[in-house]
Amino acid sequence: MIVSIPKNSDFSIHNIPFGIFSTKDRSPRAGVAIGEHILDLAALAELDVFNFNTAVLEQKHLNDFISLGKNITSKVRTDIQAWLQDDNSILAGNPELFVKQSEAQMHMPIHVGDYTDFYSSIEHATNVGKMFRNPENALLPNWKHIPVGYHGRASSIIVSGQAIHRPNGQTLPKDSTTPVFGPSQRLDFELEMGFVVGKDTKMGETISTNEAENYIFGLVLFNDWSARDIQKWEYVPLGPFLAKNFASSISPWIVTLEALEPFRMPGPKQEPMVLPYLAYSGEKNYDINLEVGITPENGEETTVCHSNFKHMYWNMVQQLAHHTVNGCNVHVGDMMASGTISGKDENSYGSMLELAWMGTKPLKLKDGTERKFINDGDTVTMRGYGEKGGIRVGFGEVSTKVLPAK
Amino acid sequence: MIVSIPKNSDFSIHNIPFGIFSTKDRSPRAGVAIGEHILDLAALAELDVFNFNTAVLEQKHLNDFISLGKNITSKVRTDIQAWLQDDNSILAGNPELFVKQSEAQMHMPIHVGDYTDFYSSIEHATNVGKMFRNPENALLPNWKHIPVGYHGRASSIIVSGQAIHRPNGQTLPKDSTTPVFGPSQRLDFELEMGFVVGKDTKMGETISTNEAENYIFGLVLFNDWSARDIQKWEYVPLGPFLAKNFASSISPWIVTLEALEPFRMPGPKQEPMVLPYLAYSGEKNYDINLEVGITPENGEETTVCHSNFKHMYWNMVQQLAHHTVNGCNVHVGDMMASGTISGKDENSYGSMLELAWMGTKPLKLKDGTERKFINDGDTVTMRGYGEKGGIRVGFGEVSTKVLPAK
Repeated sequence: MIVSIPKNSDFSIHNIPFGIFSTKDRSPRAGVAIGEHILDLAALAELDVFNFNTAVLEQKHLNDFISLGKNITSKVRTDIQAWLQDDNSILAGNPELFVKQSEAQMHMPIHVGDYTDFYSSIEHATNVGKMFRNPENALLPNWKHIPVGYHGRASSIIVSGQAIHRPNGQTLPKDSTTPVFGPSQRLDFELEMGFVVGKDTKMGETISTNEAENYIFGLVLFNDWSARDIQKWEYVPLGPFLAKNFASSISPWIVTLEALEPFRMPGPKQEPMVLPYLAYSGEKNYDINLEVGITPENGEETTVCHSNFKHMYWNMVQQLAHHTVNGCNVHVGDMMASGTISGKDENSYGSMLELAWMGTKPLKLKDGTERKFINDGDTVTMRGYGEKGGIRVGFGEVSTKVLPAK
Repeated sequence: MIVSIPKNSDFSIHNIPFGIFSTKDRSPRAGVAIGEHILDLAALAELDVFNFNTAVLEQKHLNDFISLGKNITSKVRTDIQAWLQDDNSILAGNPELFVKQSEAQMHMPIHVGDYTDFYSSIEHATNVGKMFRNPENALLPNWKHIPVGYHGRASSIIVSGQAIHRPNGQTLPKDSTTPVFGPSQRLDFELEMGFVVGKDTKMGETISTNEAENYIFGLVLFNDWSARDIQKWEYVPLGPFLAKNFASSISPWIVTLEALEPFRMPGPKQEPMVLPYLAYSGEKNYDINLEVGITPENGEETTVCHSNFKHMYWNMVQQLAHHTVNGCNVHVGDMMASGTISGKDENSYGSMLELAWMGTKPLKLKDGTERKFINDGDTVTMRGYGEKGGIRVGFGEVSTKVLPAK
């Protein structure tokens, strides 16, 4: 191996995720993560190893690279895998091709044109339904027929490491009919995964469940920050708005769909039967371990959630088929997030709302403090990885600190 | 006057709206509409009359031009007004600067980063509340406190003249609990106006109602196409999604906020009093006549709605202050639409849903046919203009034909 890869690294030879990085000496550019290093693709391109227009590797976002299509992007990945394992490859004797991740800054890997958030975990939808609507009939009538989703704000999607401010907004105090304005008192994370669209469609075109994987470039961890008190007051009848659009955070490395191949598994049985355009064949769920930690200011991290991407009721190919069945067009770089990923166990719930059950069961952190929601100074970190038969492919992390409201 | 301007032209000397056009010989570029002509700004720039980087006038969208700031864009407009009225100006003797609108193709004037749709007409919200929820208590409790809004799909915003297909989707037949799939049976327009953001903010920044007009470049007519049957089944709990994102149509000329100055008027009294961040001073509504016509295939147009932008309960500065009060960032080219603009009179309702009252009062067209919603082959055309003291400033039209479902 050209570079040493620590055991249990998320960025094993099986992964080769794409991102945008910079260093003191290198302007933002494309790279792939390998172990604790980054392979600088713009520098590698100068060695004339690629037979496409490598200007796309010197841009601030990966959109144009992704637009080259999987024929090219997949080959870049498998070529790099081969070169890394060949001590006589082009990568040998060129140490300037590699940068330590600890010395690099990561940037948004893509320019997000449109962002859609789904609501595809049955446990999450059931939990929320129990809390806010009817405990006896928690799932709404459309939920098992439609991969429910809504449009979110693309401009405020940020990369791991960038802090956010607690949002201000309108909330309705208990037993009052008049709203007040101020910092959200119920700031929450939502543990999600997001996929990045890898191929355009035109308006009027649809994507079938059979074709959908050709339109998915790869995945990231996604923290859909939510202000529960703002949401509760504003969301009827047109959905969440200011409760969500102040920030969403993603992990910087896009793990390709190909890299996740070993972790495919069957999804849940869907009953009642879905409409034909949502039917699919094959294994479309993925066994990806997910966890969330909370680190108080100057404190130690406490893991508060262990979940798994396999819990999704609706899978990505169904989401994409649904999204386009009316002719809605998608573009390379569009982000589609899963919705909060909760499992059946109480410690697998993907939000504080569920973990602390609307504040009725506060979580105890290692430092002895309690959390019903997220405090100022807390850093929320999400991690994810698949592991099977000695193959580990991980996402690194998305980590975001919450600063006080402005 | 350098070019003759027909009486009652929307594109009077007082207007000077910006757009992107092309002809057989000219690639897409910036222009302004004047009478029945377009002044080619890219060609004009070659005469060295502008003291900014005029490459922004040769682009496919106006975003970079708008990003120059109002100091520059407003001066371009007032300079052109002066030149057009000066028979010895740079425009004289240069007929190649002008193109007939009838010989030009109009394009999307901006690249829309994010699109937000508000719900700011009290008559529309009340009508919808009466039909779908509680007739006795039609307005939801938050409506008079919040300029309710939600995020829409940016990718499917198209310019006037581009046809759309009736969308397919899931709907729930009457008295059934199982949805069916097929073409929407209740395709509708929504008469709206949209404003184009003219200045960026960073995440965490807010825009006060006092500052908001500095962030509004101009306005267009906006048809928020809606599939009522799809919407009814899908929209709970997260809002409209496939019922809206198949298409929204806009008029091609962006009328600047400055051009609308003569049409300012006071808005409605807002009771209960709004929270301080939504308070404003001055006249923030605009007296802009709006109308909608339906033209059957090979038929004659029937005007079905006469409304006015002055009916808005929440105004644009309140919308923008609300949108950013949580720190949500906005970008040049973001589109913010008003929501359906209905007045008190039945013929001023801004959608077929309201005009034909859920299909109970079909509209009769000139050809004798009836409409509950929009038929295949129909063209829906929206027009708008302000007129006061001999000054007329108009928007032209947004006209969209509906083709059968694919």
